Amino acid sequence: MADSGVRAVAVLGTGLMGAAIARVLAKSGCVVTVWNRTAEKAKVLAELDGITAADTAADAVAFADVTLVVLLNSAHVEAAFAGVDLAGRTIVNLVTGTPDEMAGLGDLVTSRGGRYLAGAIAGYPQDIGAEKGALVYSGSAEIYNELKGTLVKLGGRSTLVSERLGGAAATIAALGGFAVVAITAYIEAIAFVQSEGVALDKLGDVTDTVLGVVESGIAESARAIQAGDFETDQAALRTYLKAFETFMEAFDSAGSRSVLIGALTKNLADGVAAGYGNKALAALAKLPRELDVQLI
Amino acid sequence: MADSGVRAVAVLGTGLMGAAIARVLAKSGCVVTVWNRTAEKAKVLAELDGITAADTAADAVAFADVTLVVLLNSAHVEAAFAGVDLAGRTIVNLVTGTPDEMAGLGDLVTSRGGRYLAGAIAGYPQDIGAEKGALVYSGSAEIYNELKGTLVKLGGRSTLVSERLGGAAATIAALGGFAVVAITAYIEAIAFVQSEGVALDKLGDVTDTVLGVVESGIAESARAIQAGDFETDQAALRTYLKAFETFMEAFDSAGSRSVLIGALTKNLADGVAAGYGNKALAALAKLPRELDVQLI
Repeated sequence: MADSGVRAVAVLGTGLMGAAIARVLAKSGCVVTVWNRTAEKAKVLAELDGITAADTAADAVAFADVTLVVLLNSAHVEAAFAGVDLAGRTIVNLVTGTPDEMAGLGDLVTSRGGRYLAGAIAGYPQDIGAEKGALVYSGSAEIYNELKGTLVKLGGRSTLVSERLGGAAATIAALGGFAVVAITAYIEAIAFVQSEGVALDKLGDVTDTVLGVVESGIAESARAIQAGDFETDQAALRTYLKAFETFMEAFDSAGSRSVLIGALTKNLADGVAAGYGNKALAALAKLPRELDVQLI
Repeated sequence: MADSGVRAVAVLGTGLMGAAIARVLAKSGCVVTVWNRTAEKAKVLAELDGITAADTAADAVAFADVTLVVLLNSAHVEAAFAGVDLAGRTIVNLVTGTPDEMAGLGDLVTSRGGRYLAGAIAGYPQDIGAEKGALVYSGSAEIYNELKGTLVKLGGRSTLVSERLGGAAATIAALGGFAVVAITAYIEAIAFVQSEGVALDKLGDVTDTVLGVVESGIAESARAIQAGDFETDQAALRTYLKAFETFMEAFDSAGSRSVLIGALTKNLADGVAAGYGNKALAALAKLPRELDVQLI
């Protein structure tokens, strides 16, 4: 954590996320240079203490110990880097993209003599700077450790998840996918119970308890997959399938939309057909991507 | 809460859940009579303080102020009630079933002069008696309020969700469906990130943050649906769709199973095609069950 030297930071891209990052770093005592494709946005930000707007991306990069990239997509990054001297510069890519894109930009930076770390943000601009906030990084542990003291200012639970450059994007795809699937399953639940005369504040009363079940189910599943141990003395896959057949019947008879309940019921049936009927739910992780299993 | 008179409780069914209920009630000072189809299980339980085994369901029901039914399914309840005098008895049905089955058993009990409350349990046997535990009930508010002081002993957050008899079963179908969909989405996430070289303890580091996102997303969606207001200044449906197309690409290129990510991507595309592209995620609740929308 010998990062006391990181005082000068460039932020390329001053949309909602880039602006939040620049503000948090400036408040924490960094000298921040911002650059944006449309200069007006950057100039508004530069009216704050500790933030200066650069005329070109090259100027911003040249000035900084480390450059955080928060542009719209990978094509914008390539355009912004055209003609910029990256030799000896440290670039942290926070652009949302696929694991392959994250790795591709790493090749671009290192082929021009730069150092590169791939990152991704779990959460919204309003979460930047929070103690519970997390950004995830992948790539060189040496570079991450060098920058760590600065990076944790953006989110107290930030972490290096993998030395493979695609790891950060994969983590966000996985956890972002989980979060939105979960929220949407709740939206389907709300629509259904309303049709059965249950008020939403009543549903809310029970939701805390159910979130606790989700939290412990997640932890238990991670343990099972880590250990490769799919035995269970609680609920087996075929028990879940039976419950979901009842849930489907309830949704269907109410004429309620059940896209996720339907997809999971099929998935549970696949798991039982594959021979995992008496295993834990986490055994679904062992199913191959393309199933040839014929349902019985 | 004039329920101080409820001291004698019968529990029909002494599987894992029934046994947990009988034990908690006996410990709390109730006099508990248990009955089970296979008598041995009930007799083991009757060795505990405050619990007696009855030879027949009729004996158990006749003895008690209130009878809790925790049998396997609705057919077992009908069989157990054959020849039992239900006149003036109060029956609480905790059997897992569809909303229609819950209501059907209510008709059976009231047609024979009994009083009836439908209930359902959020959680596992180990959660019975917990302050944070929840059982949900539907039916007569008068009966619920009379029994409330006893019922909250089974779960501190127990609540009457609807006066319609199917409401409790619907609530559990909705929230149980939500919980298992969420846990399974996390299982898919684990399988995927492992293939990208991300260790599970690293994923765990970020999971707390993401669970916070789920919790606030749920609350926000409930508010939006309650108010019928689907405007957003955060992320719109088409933004989620764009993210999920990226997530799908990431899962696909890793050859990883993505049943729920796939179902939700299709659902988001349906929402955008239906004209909700600039609305909040909760607008998915407005989609009809059967969509004729042609994707564009």
